[in-house]
Amino acid sequence: MTYNTSPTATLLAECPDQPGIIAKVTQFLCDNHGNIVDLEQHVDTADRRFFMRVQWQLDGFKIPANKIDSVFKKHVGTPLNMNWRISHSNTKPRMALFVSQHGHCLFDILSRHQSEEWHADIPLIISNHTTFEQQAKNAGIPFYHLPINANNKQQQEKAQLDLLAEHGIDTVVLARYMQILSANFIDHYPNNIINIHHSFLPAFPGAKPYHSAHERGVKIIGATSHYVTTELDAGPIIAQDIVRIRHNDSVDDLKRKGQDNEKIVLSRAIRHHLQHEVLVYKNRCIVFD
Amino acid sequence: MTYNTSPTATLLAECPDQPGIIAKVTQFLCDNHGNIVDLEQHVDTADRRFFMRVQWQLDGFKIPANKIDSVFKKHVGTPLNMNWRISHSNTKPRMALFVSQHGHCLFDILSRHQSEEWHADIPLIISNHTTFEQQAKNAGIPFYHLPINANNKQQQEKAQLDLLAEHGIDTVVLARYMQILSANFIDHYPNNIINIHHSFLPAFPGAKPYHSAHERGVKIIGATSHYVTTELDAGPIIAQDIVRIRHNDSVDDLKRKGQDNEKIVLSRAIRHHLQHEVLVYKNRCIVFD
Amino acid sequence: MTYNTSPTATLLAECPDQPGIIAKVTQFLCDNHGNIVDLEQHVDTADRRFFMRVQWQLDGFKIPANKIDSVFKKHVGTPLNMNWRISHSNTKPRMALFVSQHGHCLFDILSRHQSEEWHADIPLIISNHTTFEQQAKNAGIPFYHLPINANNKQQQEKAQLDLLAEHGIDTVVLARYMQILSANFIDHYPNNIINIHHSFLPAFPGAKPYHSAHERGVKIIGATSHYVTTELDAGPIIAQDIVRIRHNDSVDDLKRKGQDNEKIVLSRAIRHHLQHEVLVYKNRCIVFD
Amino acid sequence: MTYNTSPTATLLAECPDQPGIIAKVTQFLCDNHGNIVDLEQHVDTADRRFFMRVQWQLDGFKIPANKIDSVFKKHVGTPLNMNWRISHSNTKPRMALFVSQHGHCLFDILSRHQSEEWHADIPLIISNHTTFEQQAKNAGIPFYHLPINANNKQQQEKAQLDLLAEHGIDTVVLARYMQILSANFIDHYPNNIINIHHSFLPAFPGAKPYHSAHERGVKIIGATSHYVTTELDAGPIIAQDIVRIRHNDSVDDLKRKGQDNEKIVLSRAIRHHLQHEVLVYKNRCIVFD
Repeated sequence: MTYNTSPTATLLAECPDQPGIIAKVTQFLCDNHGNIVDLEQHVDTADRRFFMRVQWQLDGFKIPANKIDSVFKKHVGTPLNMNWRISHSNTKPRMALFVSQHGHCLFDILSRHQSEEWHADIPLIISNHTTFEQQAKNAGIPFYHLPINANNKQQQEKAQLDLLAEHGIDTVVLARYMQILSANFIDHYPNNIINIHHSFLPAFPGAKPYHSAHERGVKIIGATSHYVTTELDAGPIIAQDIVRIRHNDSVDDLKRKGQDNEKIVLSRAIRHHLQHEVLVYKNRCIVFD
Repeated sequence: MTYNTSPTATLLAECPDQPGIIAKVTQFLCDNHGNIVDLEQHVDTADRRFFMRVQWQLDGFKIPANKIDSVFKKHVGTPLNMNWRISHSNTKPRMALFVSQHGHCLFDILSRHQSEEWHADIPLIISNHTTFEQQAKNAGIPFYHLPINANNKQQQEKAQLDLLAEHGIDTVVLARYMQILSANFIDHYPNNIINIHHSFLPAFPGAKPYHSAHERGVKIIGATSHYVTTELDAGPIIAQDIVRIRHNDSVDDLKRKGQDNEKIVLSRAIRHHLQHEVLVYKNRCIVFD
Repeated sequence: MTYNTSPTATLLAECPDQPGIIAKVTQFLCDNHGNIVDLEQHVDTADRRFFMRVQWQLDGFKIPANKIDSVFKKHVGTPLNMNWRISHSNTKPRMALFVSQHGHCLFDILSRHQSEEWHADIPLIISNHTTFEQQAKNAGIPFYHLPINANNKQQQEKAQLDLLAEHGIDTVVLARYMQILSANFIDHYPNNIINIHHSFLPAFPGAKPYHSAHERGVKIIGATSHYVTTELDAGPIIAQDIVRIRHNDSVDDLKRKGQDNEKIVLSRAIRHHLQHEVLVYKNRCIVFD
Repeated sequence: MTYNTSPTATLLAECPDQPGIIAKVTQFLCDNHGNIVDLEQHVDTADRRFFMRVQWQLDGFKIPANKIDSVFKKHVGTPLNMNWRISHSNTKPRMALFVSQHGHCLFDILSRHQSEEWHADIPLIISNHTTFEQQAKNAGIPFYHLPINANNKQQQEKAQLDLLAEHGIDTVVLARYMQILSANFIDHYPNNIINIHHSFLPAFPGAKPYHSAHERGVKIIGATSHYVTTELDAGPIIAQDIVRIRHNDSVDDLKRKGQDNEKIVLSRAIRHHLQHEVLVYKNRCIVFD
C-alpha cells in the first residue's frame, strides 16, 4: 500500500479473461499521464475470469475527474465487456453503524474513527436499544433509537432506509446488530452491508455459536466478516481470523476471547471495503490487500 | 512437561466433583513416597465433573508396579467413583499406521519415528495400496497390503484386526487412510483410533473439503485430528490448527498448504495421546498439555 | 477458568521443590473445608523450584478471612520455605493508567472497563499530555495532567507517586506511556507495573521498533507486554503475540497493524495480572492460564 | 497462482520508478502475443524503486525462447534501466542439500521431492557427517561425505564448489547445516543459498537460540529462512513463522516444537525461490506470493 499526497482514483474491474487486458488498461492510463501507484490482478483460470485493481494519481491526469467514467467506459470498459467502478480518494465514503447491546465492536470502531485511522465519515448510529446513546453523543455522532418488535419491523426498516438515504450513506456496518435484515433492505445496499459473525463460518452459523463451539469441543474459535446477502451468514467472506482455546475455557471465556477477535476482524473488513480492495464474484471475495 | 531419569506412572482420572479429591490423590501418592512431577486438574462446573492427570516417579514408590492398580482402586478409585487408568513409562505404546495414497502424514510420522521423537513402537503399516511399500521397508517396518473393494471390506477388516491383535497394537493412526471403518472395527479400539481430517471441523466434513473451502471462499483452512467414532468426522477433537489462504490460491494450492498443516496437527494429536494427556468426556477431549 | 458465586481466595506460591508439597497444601485446604475450584502447578526441574496457584471457595472455609494469612504461614508457608501471597476475590485490584498521545490501548482498556470485563477499579488516569482528558471525563475517571520536561522529571514522579498512594493503587498500566520511569518509581511497584512494547522482544527494544522492523525486512511483527524493571524493555514477559506483514506494508501499515496487536496483548497481560495468574522467577513469568 | 499446460516465462525486474513501466512491459508482451497469467508489482515509495514479477505463456509467443533475453533487454530492460532476469518453466532448477546431524528438514524436503511437490531436481546431498547417507540412498540421491575440521575447511569448500559446478547446481539449501560458509563460497551463489535459522530473527542470532529463548522467557518462538550473506544470520529474510510456547515447556520442548516450525518455514522459502517469486533489494526480500 502506498500513500501519496496527490489524490488518486481506484479502478475495480472484472471481465472475461483474454490476452492484453492489463496492457490496454495501463496504456490507457499512461496515454493520459496517470501515474500508477498500485496494481493487482487475478485470473480465475477455472472460470476464465479476470479481476483487477489499479490506483493512479489524479494530479497531472489529463482527463477531468468528472469525465473519467465516460471516457474509461468508451475506451476500456465496454470494449473489454467489464464490470467496473472507479472511486476517487477525494470522495469520503459515508458509513452508518448499526448496533444492539454488545459494545466491543462499536467501541473499537469509534476508537479508530477518533484517531482518523479510516478515510470515512460516520454520519449516524442506529440501534434497537439505547445502551450506547451516550457513547454516540461523546463521539459527536447522531444516534437514532429504532426499537424492533414482532409487529414493527417493516415500518422500522423503512425509517432506517429513510435515515440512510437522508445522510447519503453508502456503507452499512452491522457491529453486532442482532436483527435479521429483510431482503428489501439488503437490496438497497448490495455488497455494501458488512456483518461480523462470531464463528469460523461455515461452521456454526446462526445463533449462539460460542455455545455450539463449546459443545462440539473445538480447539480454535473464529470470527467472520462478510457482506450480507439474503441467505443468513452465507454472504461472501471478506475477512476471517481465529483464536486458540483450551479445554478449561468456559462459554464465557469463549465469548471474551472471541470478542477480541470479532472487533479486529470486522475492522479489517471495513478497511478493505473503504480502500476499495474488494471485488465480489460468485459469492466469493477477491481481496486485493 | 518434565523429563526425569526415573520411570514414571501417569494417572488419568475423572469423577463426580466433590471437595477433597486432589488432597486424597496427592496424599495417597505422598504416603507411598511417590514424587509428583506433573499434576493438572480441571473442573467442568456446568457438569460438576472433575478431571485429573498426575505423573509421579516410580523410583522409591512403595507400591510395587504390578500392585499399583489394585491398591489405587481400593483406596482412591472406588471411594471417589472414578473412571481412571494408570500408564507406566516403562511400557511403550504400540501404534499401527493405516495409509492410502497420500504420503505426507506417513513421511512425517516416519521421520519422527526415526529421530525417536516419540516414546512408541510402530510394529506395522497397513495400506489398501502398495504405494508406500518401499518406504515402509526402508524404515524397517512390516508392510501389509490389504486392498479394499466393494465386496471384501468385512473380510479385510477381519484380517486387519487379526494383524493388530497379533502385534499387540493399542493405538491405530489413520494417516490419511481413505476408507471408512466399520462400527465393529471402531469398537475394538475405543478412543484409540486417531484420524486426521483435512478441514476445520465441524466445517466441511466428508469428502473433498478443500474443494468445498475454495467454493465457499473462506480465508483460512484447517485440519482436525480426532478420535474415530461411528459418526463420520464427528469424534472428539484432540488438535486443530489453521493456515491462511488468499483469493489467488487454487484448490491445488489449498491442498499443498493444507497438507503441511495436516501432518503437524496429526503429529501433535499422536503425541498428546502417547503422553497420556487426553481424557474424553461427552465427545470432548480434555487435553492436559 | 471457573466462575463461582462464592467469593474465592487465590494462593500464588513458589518454593524449593520437594516431595509432598501439593499434598500438604491441598490437605490444609481440605481440613479447613476449602473447596478447590482451580489448581495448577509447575516444576522447574533445572532449578528444582516449585510453583503453584490454587483457588478455593471462601464460603464454608473454616478460617476467617483476616486470619488466613497467618494460619497459612504457620502451617504451610514457613515449613515449606515458600514465597507466597493470597488474594481475595472480594478485594478489587486498583489500577492506574498512564498514557501519552497514542490512544489505541487506552480506548481498548476503557471499553473493557465500561463492559465490566475486568474485576478492577480504575481510580485515575495520568498523562504527560492533555490529549485524552475528554475521554477520561467521558469514562468518569479523574484525569491528571503531569507534563514532563528535561528539568521536572523527578518532581513529577513524586507527584505521580503521591497520587498513586492517595488512590490506593496496586497496579500501574503503561498504555503506551512514552516516558522512562526512574528506578525509584519502579521500586515502589515491583512486578506491578505493566508495559506494552511494540515489538517482539528481545528483537527491536527501545525507540521506533516498527521502523527497525521495516528496515530489517521481517515478515512478522510483534508486541510484548512485560513487567517494568530498571533495564529498559528487559523485564519478565507476560504476554506476546504477532501479526503477519508483507513486503508492500509501509512503516505506517506496520504501525496500524501493530496497534491492533498491542492493545490485545496488553489487555491479555492485564487480565492475567488481575486474575493473580502470574508468578515471576528469575526474570521469567510463569503464567497459569 | 495459476497452473497452465503451456510452458511459461517469468520476469523478475526492478528499476527506478517512473510512470509507464507496467504499460511498457505489458505492451511488449501483448505485441508479441504473450498471454499474461500472473502479474504483481510493488513500488517502494520511500526509495522510488519499482519491482515487478510477470509470468506469461510461451505457447504462441512470437519471440523464440533463445531470443527473449536479448529482445527484452533491447526494448524494455535497457531503456528502463532495469535489473532483471527471465526464467523458463521448461528449465528445472537444480538444488543441492547441505545437512549435518538434524534430520527434520532433510526428511521434509525428501518427502516433498518424492511427491513431486516442487519443480526442481536434487542432484546431490552434501554432509559433514554420515548420519543420513542411507536416507539419501533410499531417495536415490548421490551423497557426499565431506567432514570439516579445524584445518580442512578451505579445502573441503573447494571440493563442495567443484561438486556443485559439476552437477550444474543453481540453488544451495542449508537444511540445518551447522557450518559457517566462507565469503568466497557465498560469492559463488549470491542470493541462491537458502538457510533456516531456528529463531525469530533478529532475535537470538548465532548458536543455541532455543536456550536463549527459554532463558529470556519469551512466549513465542520462531524460525527464519533467509538468503545467506557474509554477515551471520543477517541476510534478507524470505519467510518466517512462529509457534506459541508456555512456561512449562523445557528447552527440549522448544526444540521439538521449533523443529516442526523450521521445516515448514524452510520449505515455504524454497518454494518461493523455485517459483521465482523473490526479489532482493537493500537486504530485504520482496516476495510476490
